[in-house]
Amino acid sequence: VNGTIPPDPTPEWRLRDALRPGDLAAVRGLAEATGFFSAAEVAIAAELVEETLSNPSSSSYRFLLLEKAGTLLGYTCYGEIPGTIGSFDLYWLVVAADRQGQGLGRRLLEETEGRIAALGGRQLYAETSSRPQYLPTCGFYEATGFQEAARLPDYYAPGDSMIIYAKSLDSPAHSD
Amino acid sequence: VNGTIPPDPTPEWRLRDALRPGDLAAVRGLAEATGFFSAAEVAIAAELVEETLSNPSSSSYRFLLLEKAGTLLGYTCYGEIPGTIGSFDLYWLVVAADRQGQGLGRRLLEETEGRIAALGGRQLYAETSSRPQYLPTCGFYEATGFQEAARLPDYYAPGDSMIIYAKSLDSPAHSD
Repeated sequence: VNGTIPPDPTPEWRLRDALRPGDLAAVRGLAEATGFFSAAEVAIAAELVEETLSNPSSSSYRFLLLEKAGTLLGYTCYGEIPGTIGSFDLYWLVVAADRQGQGLGRRLLEETEGRIAALGGRQLYAETSSRPQYLPTCGFYEATGFQEAARLPDYYAPGDSMIIYAKSLDSPAHSD
Repeated sequence: VNGTIPPDPTPEWRLRDALRPGDLAAVRGLAEATGFFSAAEVAIAAELVEETLSNPSSSSYRFLLLEKAGTLLGYTCYGEIPGTIGSFDLYWLVVAADRQGQGLGRRLLEETEGRIAALGGRQLYAETSSRPQYLPTCGFYEATGFQEAARLPDYYAPGDSMIIYAKSLDSPAHSD
């Protein structure tokens, strides 16, 4: 108690809304390392970061990044759906492979929902696939207050349906 | 029978797939003149033409234009939905205000479906609104073999649902 305080070896998680150029490689690396996404999907994730970095004012994509000691642990990409008033899409929610199951996805979602509500968002949508790989994704949405709103058979490919999950942000969650 | 044949005063309708620079103003004028679309919707319609004229190879939007004697009577804008294999979206189908009810929309749709099938398209989707203004639109889709696949309440705005119509292109139309 008489000496200097060493730098905190485990600084808290930090949330950041504004993209930085370094996020392009970080997001690509994070998405790749999950082993969950195809190369085409990783490319799309990176493209949205790139587009928003290039045109921050005109892009309709928003980001929320969760990092610890400068390392990206997860992020969401979301935005108001063009042509709608107050309907938002959760385009991406990614958590680092070695950090899954620790509540980071839930925390990112809650923080993202708060930002969407502050922007006047009423509805949040998340699209996902019916493939077995996405069962945990579906479970996550169902556990966080989303309801299945639609299912389009053979949407992504033959036998691969799109499931649209929806969550109303302007009324308390249903308890039924 | 001994003289020259005068130019046909009523040349046939012509279909054209390749956009030309003049189509930007023509599409904007056509969409505006219907009185059906909001200024924001007209702007989006024009934007898709502009984007495709600027980047014909990278744009995922395709167009089919129906004209008579150089005047645009209607058009469709369609394309494969990114991230899917063989699912196409019918983004726009517009027929000139003074040419509606003459089967042009149906002809444009059939020709567009043929092009989509030739590109390997399996499914065609069309999104529309539940607002009373769109009842004739819904009637058109129901009369041309689409089925309501989903309805998302309050999607466009409170009280304004999105209806997703779907049509399978790789099997004969249902007759029920």
